[in-house]
Amino acid sequence: MSAKACHCKIVDCTIRDGGLVNNWDFSVEFVQHLYNSLNEAGVEYMEIGYKNSPKLLKGADSAGPWRFLNDDFLRTVIPNKGKTKLSALVDIGRVDENDILPRSESLLDLIRVACYIQDVDKALELVSLFHERGYETTLNIMALSNVMENQLIEAFELIRESVVDYVYIVDSYGSLKPTDMSYLIDKFKEHLPNKRLGVHTHNNMQLAFANTLVAVDKGVELLDSSVYGMGRAAGNCNTELLVAHLPNAKYNIRPVLDMIEKHMIPLREKEEWGYIIPYMITGMLDEHPRSAMALRDTPDKDKSVDFYDKLTTPEVVHSK
Amino acid sequence: MSAKACHCKIVDCTIRDGGLVNNWDFSVEFVQHLYNSLNEAGVEYMEIGYKNSPKLLKGADSAGPWRFLNDDFLRTVIPNKGKTKLSALVDIGRVDENDILPRSESLLDLIRVACYIQDVDKALELVSLFHERGYETTLNIMALSNVMENQLIEAFELIRESVVDYVYIVDSYGSLKPTDMSYLIDKFKEHLPNKRLGVHTHNNMQLAFANTLVAVDKGVELLDSSVYGMGRAAGNCNTELLVAHLPNAKYNIRPVLDMIEKHMIPLREKEEWGYIIPYMITGMLDEHPRSAMALRDTPDKDKSVDFYDKLTTPEVVHSK
Repeated sequence: MSAKACHCKIVDCTIRDGGLVNNWDFSVEFVQHLYNSLNEAGVEYMEIGYKNSPKLLKGADSAGPWRFLNDDFLRTVIPNKGKTKLSALVDIGRVDENDILPRSESLLDLIRVACYIQDVDKALELVSLFHERGYETTLNIMALSNVMENQLIEAFELIRESVVDYVYIVDSYGSLKPTDMSYLIDKFKEHLPNKRLGVHTHNNMQLAFANTLVAVDKGVELLDSSVYGMGRAAGNCNTELLVAHLPNAKYNIRPVLDMIEKHMIPLREKEEWGYIIPYMITGMLDEHPRSAMALRDTPDKDKSVDFYDKLTTPEVVHSK
Repeated sequence: MSAKACHCKIVDCTIRDGGLVNNWDFSVEFVQHLYNSLNEAGVEYMEIGYKNSPKLLKGADSAGPWRFLNDDFLRTVIPNKGKTKLSALVDIGRVDENDILPRSESLLDLIRVACYIQDVDKALELVSLFHERGYETTLNIMALSNVMENQLIEAFELIRESVVDYVYIVDSYGSLKPTDMSYLIDKFKEHLPNKRLGVHTHNNMQLAFANTLVAVDKGVELLDSSVYGMGRAAGNCNTELLVAHLPNAKYNIRPVLDMIEKHMIPLREKEEWGYIIPYMITGMLDEHPRSAMALRDTPDKDKSVDFYDKLTTPEVVHSK
């Protein structure tokens, strides 16, 4: 609790980012229970999946429906929408404009566009399209810890002139410390005075919640999280921690605890995410967790000394 | 990495605080491997157990030898002491003065006295004794989140006049947020300008590492941690995270990863600690984890909604 009121909103990414863990193999009942829990808990947004097109992605057949959200399907999943708004993420080059209905005909409220720094221009074209169709929009710039500031400054110029509502600082590799997060937020605020901000954190170094608290203190308004931290590799900031600690009287942790008890604990027995040493290592080395994810799929999954040696030996070429 | 050099030192508490998890059932080989790992990693102190007297404690028979350190035994465990110093913790009323050899006859370098605020006077008497016998000393004030500031100010007066080398801020319940930790450190610095400070954190809300980073930024010199976070209930700040991130060139994470791979991962299969929802709940409610520890010993261990209801229903009396 804090005397300072909090104007931030939570965007729960359990299905979307968590889907990267289990190939979006969530039952309809699971997703409904999550929606109702978040709605009761007072969480403002639920990101219910990706709005990419299966035509534009390899290996699409095996994925669950939350990877390629369909508006008709969505209506059967959430027949009685509550206060919690629905969000979808799209990736550059993987979205078919024809799939995007006007907001008035969709259950979705928010469409978020994720991109790397070099694709900000393309991302903003998509943002513009979604904006015209009536959606709230965000631009999520990934892997900021690997971006040189001159590139960032160039991107800021495009963003400033765009219609995007929120701009996200995404700690893709879970490598930012609170002082780094603080630095980036100040930089974004300085160059984007006309935009609202969001943060998406990863928990490689057990700093996802702490970095999100830094964002709250600095007036960032959209906070991404997942129930029980479920998300790719080390996972995200935990929704239950935000609901428990943000100074907003409307939040209620009880439904989130219920979701954890009924669904997340059993799911965690089958699927893996969280603070796991190979993910800590990619976080400390400030690189993509894909090498650690590959390691976790082998019998050597806990051989972290060899793994560390491979990533830190200069002669060995490895790609980020 | 940071441009600012770090004058802090790590006190690894794996055996002492981790012993609260497994009743100090660590093999000599485990403890030796840990000592050698910490020594190679550049960790300054290893807290190898408690120096309480078995005569003054109930249920002492079943505990491993690290609960009642004996100087002769210690010499057989660490026949070749390296640079890493050895530490032991004592509790008020559980230590027999006659057990404490002069430092010149012991492998121990540091003796730490843990107490609640109302026992600071008694603790300082013990500190004085250990100081006279040649040891470095710390005073570890527990459960500070439950202490009123007038009591703290009174305690500061006693501490200022004492011979104690370091005074610890102990977040016993894992309930402090970085802003709280920052507040307490400022308070300690203001009232104890002649003392060095230490922090001991718990990870109930995934803030142990973040709170320790706050301490580093504020010049706190002794940082408690455990390998793989092993400690009572939610555990402590992770030694591997400190070794990976503190700006001190001498630290080497590789031996710590080796300890985790060889010993901690297998141990975690048998014993439980870390971010577990009932511990998160006692952390958010700012109370001792004993109710959560009791719950985890029952078949209802994951029934966190009922647990939450019990702790938050006003009619139900529960003691802290």
